[in-house]
Amino acid sequence: MELNKRQEQILQIVKDHGPITGESIAEKLNLTRATLRPDLAILTMAGYLEARPRVGYFYTGKTGSQLLADKIKKIKVADYQSIPVVVNENVSVYDAIVTMFLEDVGTLFVVDNDSLLVGVLSRKDLLRASIGKQELRSIPVNIIMTRMPNITMCYKDDLLIDVAERLIEKQIDAIPVVKKTEKGYEVVGRITKTNMTKAFVALAKDDLI
Amino acid sequence: MELNKRQEQILQIVKDHGPITGESIAEKLNLTRATLRPDLAILTMAGYLEARPRVGYFYTGKTGSQLLADKIKKIKVADYQSIPVVVNENVSVYDAIVTMFLEDVGTLFVVDNDSLLVGVLSRKDLLRASIGKQELRSIPVNIIMTRMPNITMCYKDDLLIDVAERLIEKQIDAIPVVKKTEKGYEVVGRITKTNMTKAFVALAKDDLI
Repeated sequence: MELNKRQEQILQIVKDHGPITGESIAEKLNLTRATLRPDLAILTMAGYLEARPRVGYFYTGKTGSQLLADKIKKIKVADYQSIPVVVNENVSVYDAIVTMFLEDVGTLFVVDNDSLLVGVLSRKDLLRASIGKQELRSIPVNIIMTRMPNITMCYKDDLLIDVAERLIEKQIDAIPVVKKTEKGYEVVGRITKTNMTKAFVALAKDDLI
Repeated sequence: MELNKRQEQILQIVKDHGPITGESIAEKLNLTRATLRPDLAILTMAGYLEARPRVGYFYTGKTGSQLLADKIKKIKVADYQSIPVVVNENVSVYDAIVTMFLEDVGTLFVVDNDSLLVGVLSRKDLLRASIGKQELRSIPVNIIMTRMPNITMCYKDDLLIDVAERLIEKQIDAIPVVKKTEKGYEVVGRITKTNMTKAFVALAKDDLI
Protein backbone atom coordinates (compact mmCIF):
# COMPACT_ATOMS: atom_id res chain seq x y z
CA MET A 1 0.00 0.00 0.00
CA GLU A 2 1.37 3.38 -0.95
CA LEU A 3 0.96 6.41 1.26
CA ASN A 4 -0.07 9.80 -0.09
CA LYS A 5 1.83 12.97 0.66
CA ARG A 6 -0.30 14.02 3.61
CA GLN A 7 -0.01 10.59 5.19
CA GLU A 8 3.77 10.77 4.83
CA GLN A 9 3.68 14.17 6.56
CA ILE A 10 1.61 12.77 9.42
CA LEU A 11 4.02 9.84 9.81
CA GLN A 12 6.93 12.26 10.01
CA ILE A 13 5.19 14.41 12.64
CA VAL A 14 4.38 11.39 14.79
CA LYS A 15 7.95 10.10 14.40
CA ASP A 16 9.30 13.47 15.57
CA HIS A 17 6.75 14.39 18.24
CA GLY A 18 4.87 11.23 19.25
CA PRO A 19 3.00 10.46 21.36
CA ILE A 20 0.90 13.26 19.94
CA THR A 21 -2.87 13.85 19.78
CA GLY A 22 -4.82 14.05 16.55
CA GLU A 23 -5.59 17.67 17.31
CA SER A 24 -1.93 18.60 17.68
CA ILE A 25 -1.12 16.88 14.40
CA ALA A 26 -3.93 18.84 12.72
CA GLU A 27 -2.59 22.11 14.16
CA LYS A 28 0.87 21.45 12.77
CA LEU A 29 -0.59 20.88 9.33
CA ASN A 30 -3.04 23.81 9.53
CA LEU A 31 -5.90 21.42 8.95
CA THR A 32 -8.97 20.46 10.95
CA ARG A 33 -9.11 17.26 12.96
CA ALA A 34 -12.03 16.13 10.77
CA THR A 35 -10.00 16.50 7.59
CA LEU A 36 -7.27 14.32 9.03
CA ARG A 37 -9.56 11.60 10.33
CA PRO A 38 -9.45 9.32 7.23
CA ASP A 39 -5.66 9.55 7.00
CA LEU A 40 -5.21 8.77 10.70
CA ALA A 41 -7.62 5.86 10.37
CA ILE A 42 -5.68 4.49 7.40
CA LEU A 43 -2.31 4.83 9.10
CA THR A 44 -3.62 3.16 12.25
CA MET A 45 -5.38 0.32 10.47
CA ALA A 46 -2.41 -0.40 8.27
CA GLY A 47 -0.23 -0.70 11.36
CA TYR A 48 2.00 2.35 10.88
CA LEU A 49 0.55 4.17 13.88
CA GLU A 50 -0.90 3.03 17.15
CA ALA A 51 -3.53 5.09 18.95
CA ARG A 52 -3.86 5.11 22.72
CA PRO A 53 -6.86 6.84 24.34
CA ARG A 54 -5.98 10.04 26.19
CA VAL A 55 -2.34 9.80 25.09
CA GLY A 56 -2.27 10.07 21.33
CA TYR A 57 -0.62 8.47 18.34
CA PHE A 58 2.63 6.48 18.46
CA TYR A 59 4.79 5.50 15.51
CA THR A 60 5.05 1.70 15.49
CA GLY A 61 8.24 1.80 13.49
CA LYS A 62 6.82 -0.54 10.91
CA THR A 63 6.94 -0.11 7.17
CA GLY A 64 4.59 -1.91 4.83
CA SER A 65 7.12 -4.66 4.18
CA GLN A 66 7.68 -5.10 7.88
CA LEU A 67 4.01 -5.75 8.39
CA LEU A 68 4.31 -8.47 5.76
CA ALA A 69 7.38 -9.76 7.52
CA ASP A 70 5.34 -10.05 10.71
CA LYS A 71 3.01 -12.37 8.89
CA ILE A 72 5.81 -14.61 7.63
CA LYS A 73 7.17 -14.82 11.14
CA LYS A 74 4.07 -16.68 12.25
CA ILE A 75 4.76 -19.74 10.07
CA LYS A 76 5.95 -22.77 12.06
CA VAL A 77 8.15 -25.71 10.99
CA ALA A 78 5.17 -28.01 11.61
CA ASP A 79 3.22 -26.20 8.86
CA TYR A 80 5.68 -27.28 6.17
CA GLN A 81 7.71 -30.26 7.40
CA SER A 82 7.96 -33.50 5.39
CA ILE A 83 8.13 -37.11 6.48
CA PRO A 84 11.70 -38.10 7.47
CA VAL A 85 13.56 -41.02 5.90
CA VAL A 86 15.81 -42.84 8.37
CA VAL A 87 18.35 -45.65 8.18
CA ASN A 88 20.00 -47.64 10.95
CA GLU A 89 23.62 -46.74 11.69
CA ASN A 90 24.73 -50.27 10.84
CA VAL A 91 23.46 -50.37 7.24
CA SER A 92 26.08 -50.18 4.50
CA VAL A 93 26.82 -47.05 2.50
CA TYR A 94 25.60 -48.94 -0.56
CA ASP A 95 22.23 -49.67 1.04
CA ALA A 96 21.92 -46.06 2.15
CA ILE A 97 22.43 -44.90 -1.44
CA VAL A 98 19.78 -47.34 -2.62
CA THR A 99 17.38 -46.05 0.06
CA MET A 100 18.08 -42.49 -1.02
CA PHE A 101 17.11 -43.33 -4.60
CA LEU A 102 14.08 -45.40 -3.64
CA GLU A 103 12.72 -42.73 -1.32
CA ASP A 104 13.86 -39.94 -3.61
CA VAL A 105 15.24 -37.70 -0.88
CA GLY A 106 18.46 -35.71 -0.69
CA THR A 107 19.21 -36.39 2.97
CA LEU A 108 18.90 -39.45 5.22
CA PHE A 109 18.82 -39.36 9.00
CA VAL A 110 20.73 -42.09 10.81
CA VAL A 111 19.35 -43.66 14.00
CA ASP A 112 20.62 -46.18 16.54
CA ASN A 113 18.82 -49.33 17.71
CA ASP A 114 16.68 -47.20 20.06
CA SER A 115 15.52 -45.09 17.08
CA LEU A 116 17.43 -42.10 18.40
CA LEU A 117 19.17 -39.67 16.03
CA VAL A 118 22.92 -40.30 15.76
CA GLY A 119 23.81 -38.90 12.32
CA VAL A 120 22.92 -37.27 9.03
CA LEU A 121 23.86 -38.39 5.51
CA SER A 122 23.69 -35.99 2.58
CA ARG A 123 23.99 -36.82 -1.12
CA LYS A 124 27.32 -35.06 -0.91
CA ASP A 125 28.55 -37.43 1.84
CA LEU A 126 27.48 -40.45 -0.16
CA LEU A 127 28.99 -39.14 -3.39
CA ARG A 128 32.30 -38.48 -1.60
CA ALA A 129 32.32 -42.03 -0.22
CA SER A 130 31.37 -43.56 -3.55
CA ILE A 131 34.35 -42.14 -5.42
CA GLY A 132 36.71 -43.32 -2.67
CA LYS A 133 38.55 -46.60 -2.78
CA GLN A 134 36.37 -48.21 -0.13
CA GLU A 135 34.02 -51.12 -0.68
CA LEU A 136 30.57 -49.49 -0.35
CA ARG A 137 28.85 -52.74 0.57
CA SER A 138 31.04 -53.39 3.58
CA ILE A 139 31.40 -50.02 5.29
CA PRO A 140 28.56 -48.96 7.58
CA VAL A 141 27.11 -45.45 7.28
CA ASN A 142 28.28 -44.48 10.77
CA ILE A 143 31.82 -44.26 9.38
CA ILE A 144 30.98 -41.49 6.92
CA MET A 145 27.98 -39.68 8.44
CA THR A 146 27.95 -36.29 10.13
CA ARG A 147 27.46 -37.25 13.77
CA MET A 148 26.12 -35.82 17.00
CA PRO A 149 26.76 -33.24 18.42
CA ASN A 150 27.53 -31.65 15.02
CA ILE A 151 23.98 -32.01 13.72
CA THR A 152 21.80 -28.96 13.18
CA MET A 153 18.32 -29.85 14.46
CA CYS A 154 15.02 -28.06 14.91
CA TYR A 155 11.68 -28.52 16.64
CA LYS A 156 8.20 -28.48 15.11
CA ASP A 157 7.31 -25.27 16.92
CA ASP A 158 10.38 -23.39 15.65
CA LEU A 159 9.72 -20.57 13.22
CA LEU A 160 10.15 -21.67 9.60
CA ILE A 161 12.07 -18.50 8.85
CA ASP A 162 14.69 -19.24 11.55
CA VAL A 163 15.24 -22.70 10.10
CA ALA A 164 15.54 -21.19 6.60
CA GLU A 165 18.35 -19.00 7.89
CA ARG A 166 20.08 -21.99 9.47
CA LEU A 167 19.93 -23.91 6.16
CA ILE A 168 21.63 -21.01 4.41
CA GLU A 169 24.18 -20.31 7.15
CA LYS A 170 25.23 -23.96 7.54
CA GLN A 171 25.05 -24.57 3.76
CA ILE A 172 23.00 -27.72 4.17
CA ASP A 173 19.95 -29.01 2.31
CA ALA A 174 17.91 -30.51 5.13
CA ILE A 175 17.45 -30.38 8.90
CA PRO A 176 15.83 -33.08 11.04
CA VAL A 177 12.78 -32.05 13.06
CA VAL A 178 13.29 -33.74 16.44
CA LYS A 179 11.48 -34.44 19.68
CA LYS A 180 13.57 -34.48 22.83
CA THR A 181 13.10 -37.54 25.03
CA GLU A 182 14.89 -38.70 28.17
CA LYS A 183 17.24 -40.87 26.16
CA GLY A 184 17.96 -38.53 23.25
CA TYR A 185 16.34 -37.10 20.13
CA GLU A 186 13.65 -38.84 18.11
CA VAL A 187 13.32 -37.81 14.45
CA VAL A 188 9.75 -36.72 13.72
CA GLY A 189 10.18 -34.73 10.51
CA ARG A 190 12.41 -33.31 7.82
CA ILE A 191 12.63 -29.75 6.64
CA THR A 192 14.44 -28.92 3.39
CA LYS A 193 15.06 -26.17 0.89
CA THR A 194 12.21 -27.72 -1.08
CA ASN A 195 9.86 -26.96 1.81
CA MET A 196 11.18 -23.39 1.86
CA THR A 197 10.58 -23.06 -1.88
CA LYS A 198 7.02 -24.31 -1.32
CA ALA A 199 6.44 -21.75 1.45
CA PHE A 200 7.70 -19.03 -0.89
CA VAL A 201 5.30 -20.16 -3.61
CA ALA A 202 2.42 -20.35 -1.12
CA LEU A 203 3.04 -16.75 -0.09
CA ALA A 204 2.72 -15.63 -3.68
CA LYS A 205 -0.31 -17.81 -4.31
CA ASP A 206 -2.09 -16.45 -1.29
CA ASP A 207 -2.61 -19.84 0.30
CA LEU A 208 -0.25 -19.60 3.18
CA ILE A 209 -1.02 -22.29 5.71
CA MET B 1 -4.52 -5.32 7.92
CA GLU B 2 -7.85 -6.27 9.45
CA LEU B 3 -11.11 -4.75 8.34
CA ASN B 4 -13.79 -3.60 10.76
CA LYS B 5 -17.40 -4.68 10.54
CA ARG B 6 -18.58 -1.69 8.54
CA GLN B 7 -15.75 -2.08 6.04
CA GLU B 8 -16.68 -5.73 5.59
CA GLN B 9 -20.29 -4.64 4.95
CA ILE B 10 -19.15 -2.13 2.35
CA LEU B 11 -17.01 -4.76 0.61
CA GLN B 12 -20.00 -7.10 0.47
CA ILE B 13 -22.24 -4.39 -1.00
CA VAL B 14 -19.70 -3.53 -3.68
CA LYS B 15 -19.17 -7.22 -4.47
CA ASP B 16 -22.94 -7.65 -4.93
CA HIS B 17 -23.84 -4.37 -6.61
CA GLY B 18 -20.67 -2.82 -8.00
CA PRO B 19 -20.01 -0.57 -9.79
CA ILE B 20 -21.86 1.48 -7.21
CA THR B 21 -21.55 5.09 -6.07
CA GLY B 22 -20.57 6.10 -2.56
CA GLU B 23 -24.00 7.61 -2.11
CA SER B 24 -25.77 4.40 -3.00
CA ILE B 25 -23.58 2.46 -0.58
CA ALA B 26 -24.42 4.99 2.13
CA GLU B 27 -28.14 4.60 1.41
CA LYS B 28 -27.98 0.85 1.75
CA LEU B 29 -26.33 1.22 5.13
CA ASN B 30 -28.61 4.05 6.28
CA LEU B 31 -25.58 6.25 6.80
CA THR B 32 -24.45 9.55 5.33
CA ARG B 33 -21.83 9.70 2.60
CA ALA B 34 -19.60 11.72 4.96
CA THR B 35 -19.69 9.01 7.60
CA LEU B 36 -18.56 6.44 5.06
CA ARG B 37 -15.77 8.53 3.60
CA PRO B 38 -12.95 7.26 5.87
CA ASP B 39 -13.93 3.62 5.30
CA LEU B 40 -14.12 4.07 1.56
CA ALA B 41 -10.75 5.80 1.60
CA ILE B 42 -9.21 2.94 3.57
CA LEU B 43 -10.67 0.25 1.31
CA THR B 44 -9.51 2.07 -1.80
CA MET B 45 -6.02 2.82 -0.54
CA ALA B 46 -5.52 -0.71 0.66
CA GLY B 47 -6.42 -1.99 -2.81
CA TYR B 48 -9.70 -3.74 -1.99
CA LEU B 49 -11.78 -1.27 -3.97
CA GLU B 50 -11.15 0.82 -7.02
CA ALA B 51 -12.94 4.12 -7.58
CA ARG B 52 -13.75 5.45 -11.04
CA PRO B 53 -15.10 9.00 -11.43
CA ARG B 54 -18.78 9.15 -12.45
CA VAL B 55 -19.07 5.37 -12.28
CA GLY B 56 -18.47 4.35 -8.70
CA TYR B 57 -16.64 1.71 -6.71
CA PHE B 58 -15.51 -1.63 -8.10
CA TYR B 59 -14.37 -4.63 -6.10
CA THR B 60 -10.81 -5.48 -7.18
CA GLY B 61 -11.16 -9.06 -5.98
CA LYS B 62 -8.02 -8.77 -3.94
CA THR B 63 -7.61 -9.84 -0.33
CA GLY B 64 -4.85 -8.53 1.90
CA SER B 65 -2.69 -11.55 1.15
CA GLN B 66 -3.24 -11.14 -2.55
CA LEU B 67 -1.88 -7.64 -2.35
CA LEU B 68 1.23 -9.10 -0.74
CA ALA B 69 1.32 -11.73 -3.45
CA ASP B 70 1.37 -8.94 -6.04
CA LYS B 71 4.56 -7.69 -4.46
CA ILE B 72 6.26 -11.08 -4.61
CA LYS B 73 5.29 -11.36 -8.25
CA LYS B 74 7.55 -8.44 -9.08
CA ILE B 75 10.76 -10.30 -8.14
CA LYS B 76 12.81 -11.38 -11.17
CA VAL B 77 15.24 -14.28 -11.60
CA ALA B 78 18.02 -11.72 -12.16
CA ASP B 79 17.49 -10.42 -8.60
CA TYR B 80 18.49 -13.73 -7.05
CA GLN B 81 20.47 -15.81 -9.57
CA SER B 82 23.92 -17.23 -8.76
CA ILE B 83 26.99 -17.75 -10.91
CA PRO B 84 26.74 -20.96 -12.98
CA VAL B 85 29.37 -23.70 -12.87
CA VAL B 86 29.88 -25.38 -16.24
CA VAL B 87 31.91 -28.33 -17.53
CA ASN B 88 32.66 -29.38 -21.09
CA GLU B 89 30.70 -32.37 -22.39
CA ASN B 90 33.93 -34.31 -22.93
CA VAL B 91 35.21 -34.25 -19.34
CA SER B 92 35.00 -37.50 -17.39
CA VAL B 93 32.36 -38.23 -14.77
CA TYR B 94 35.18 -38.37 -12.23
CA ASP B 95 36.37 -34.86 -13.13
CA ALA B 96 32.79 -33.57 -12.98
CA ILE B 97 32.44 -34.95 -9.43
CA VAL B 98 35.71 -33.27 -8.45
CA THR B 99 34.48 -29.97 -9.96
CA MET B 100 31.22 -30.31 -8.04
CA PHE B 101 33.14 -30.65 -4.77
CA LEU B 102 35.64 -27.90 -5.55
CA GLU B 103 32.92 -25.42 -6.55
CA ASP B 104 30.57 -26.68 -3.85
CA VAL B 105 27.46 -26.73 -6.02
CA GLY B 106 24.72 -29.32 -6.37
CA THR B 107 24.26 -29.03 -10.13
CA LEU B 108 26.68 -28.62 -13.07
CA PHE B 109 25.71 -27.37 -16.51
CA VAL B 110 27.32 -29.10 -19.46
CA VAL B 111 28.39 -27.13 -22.53
CA ASP B 112 29.82 -28.00 -25.93
CA ASN B 113 32.94 -26.52 -27.53
CA ASP B 114 30.95 -23.42 -28.55
CA SER B 115 29.98 -22.84 -24.88
CA LEU B 116 26.37 -23.70 -25.65
CA LEU B 117 24.21 -25.61 -23.16
CA VAL B 118 23.90 -29.31 -24.00
CA GLY B 119 23.16 -30.94 -20.64
CA VAL B 120 22.66 -30.82 -16.88
CA LEU B 121 24.31 -32.97 -14.20
CA SER B 122 22.81 -33.25 -10.73
CA ARG B 123 24.40 -34.80 -7.65
CA LYS B 124 21.84 -37.54 -8.09
CA ASP B 125 23.06 -38.28 -11.66
CA LEU B 126 26.66 -38.43 -10.48
CA LEU B 127 25.80 -40.60 -7.47
CA ARG B 128 23.90 -43.01 -9.72
CA ALA B 129 26.88 -43.26 -12.07
CA SER B 130 29.36 -43.67 -9.26
CA ILE B 131 27.71 -46.77 -7.81
CA GLY B 132 27.57 -48.35 -11.25
CA LYS B 133 30.20 -50.69 -12.54
CA GLN B 134 31.62 -48.19 -14.98
CA GLU B 135 35.09 -46.68 -14.80
CA LEU B 136 34.39 -43.06 -13.79
CA ARG B 137 37.65 -41.74 -15.22
CA SER B 138 36.96 -43.00 -18.74
CA ILE B 139 33.28 -42.20 -19.35
CA PRO B 140 32.46 -38.64 -20.46
CA VAL B 141 29.63 -36.75 -18.78
CA ASN B 142 27.59 -36.59 -21.97
CA ILE B 143 26.79 -40.28 -21.49
CA ILE B 144 25.03 -39.76 -18.16
CA MET B 145 23.74 -36.17 -18.28
CA THR B 146 20.16 -35.00 -18.81
CA ARG B 147 20.32 -33.61 -22.33
CA MET B 148 18.54 -31.09 -24.53
CA PRO B 149 15.63 -30.79 -25.23
CA ASN B 150 14.75 -32.24 -21.80
CA ILE B 151 16.33 -29.40 -19.86
CA THR B 152 14.18 -26.97 -17.91
CA MET B 153 15.63 -23.49 -18.49
CA CYS B 154 14.70 -19.94 -17.56
CA TYR B 155 15.59 -16.37 -18.50
CA LYS B 156 16.83 -13.57 -16.25
CA ASP B 157 13.62 -11.61 -16.72
CA ASP B 158 11.37 -14.51 -15.72
CA LEU B 159 9.47 -14.14 -12.47
CA LEU B 160 11.25 -15.84 -9.57
CA ILE B 161 7.98 -17.30 -8.37
CA ASP B 162 7.34 -19.05 -11.71
CA VAL B 163 10.78 -20.63 -11.57
CA ALA B 164 10.13 -21.70 -7.96
CA GLU B 165 7.04 -23.53 -9.16
CA ARG B 166 9.01 -25.21 -11.95
CA LEU B 167 11.63 -26.43 -9.44
CA ILE B 168 8.89 -28.03 -7.36
CA GLU B 169 6.93 -29.45 -10.28
CA LYS B 170 9.97 -30.98 -12.00
CA GLN B 171 11.50 -32.07 -8.67
CA ILE B 172 14.88 -30.61 -9.51
CA ASP B 173 17.33 -28.56 -7.46
CA ALA B 174 18.59 -26.06 -10.01
CA ILE B 175 17.68 -24.47 -13.34
CA PRO B 176 20.12 -22.81 -15.75
CA VAL B 177 19.48 -19.15 -16.57
CA VAL B 178 20.09 -18.89 -20.29
CA LYS B 179 20.44 -16.36 -23.06
CA LYS B 180 19.20 -17.34 -26.49
CA THR B 181 21.65 -16.80 -29.34
CA GLU B 182 21.54 -17.72 -32.99
CA LYS B 183 23.46 -20.93 -32.37
CA GLY B 184 21.76 -22.07 -29.17
CA TYR B 185 21.57 -21.24 -25.47
CA GLU B 186 24.38 -19.67 -23.47
CA VAL B 187 24.37 -20.28 -19.72
CA VAL B 188 24.46 -16.97 -17.85
CA GLY B 189 23.28 -17.98 -14.39
CA ARG B 190 22.01 -20.61 -12.02
CA ILE B 191 18.89 -20.54 -9.90
CA THR B 192 18.43 -23.06 -7.09
CA LYS B 193 16.29 -23.91 -4.09
CA THR B 194 18.96 -22.12 -2.06
CA ASN B 195 18.16 -18.90 -3.94
CA MET B 196 14.46 -19.48 -3.20
CA THR B 197 15.23 -20.00 0.48
CA LYS B 198 17.18 -16.73 0.45
CA ALA B 199 14.28 -14.87 -1.19
CA PHE B 200 11.96 -16.26 1.50
CA VAL B 201 14.30 -15.05 4.24
CA ALA B 202 14.62 -11.64 2.56
CA LEU B 203 10.84 -11.26 2.55
CA ALA B 204 10.74 -11.83 6.28
CA LYS B 205 13.71 -9.56 6.90
CA ASP B 206 12.15 -6.76 4.93
CA ASP B 207 15.10 -6.38 2.61
CA LEU B 208 13.60 -7.69 -0.55
CA ILE B 209 15.70 -6.67 -3.52
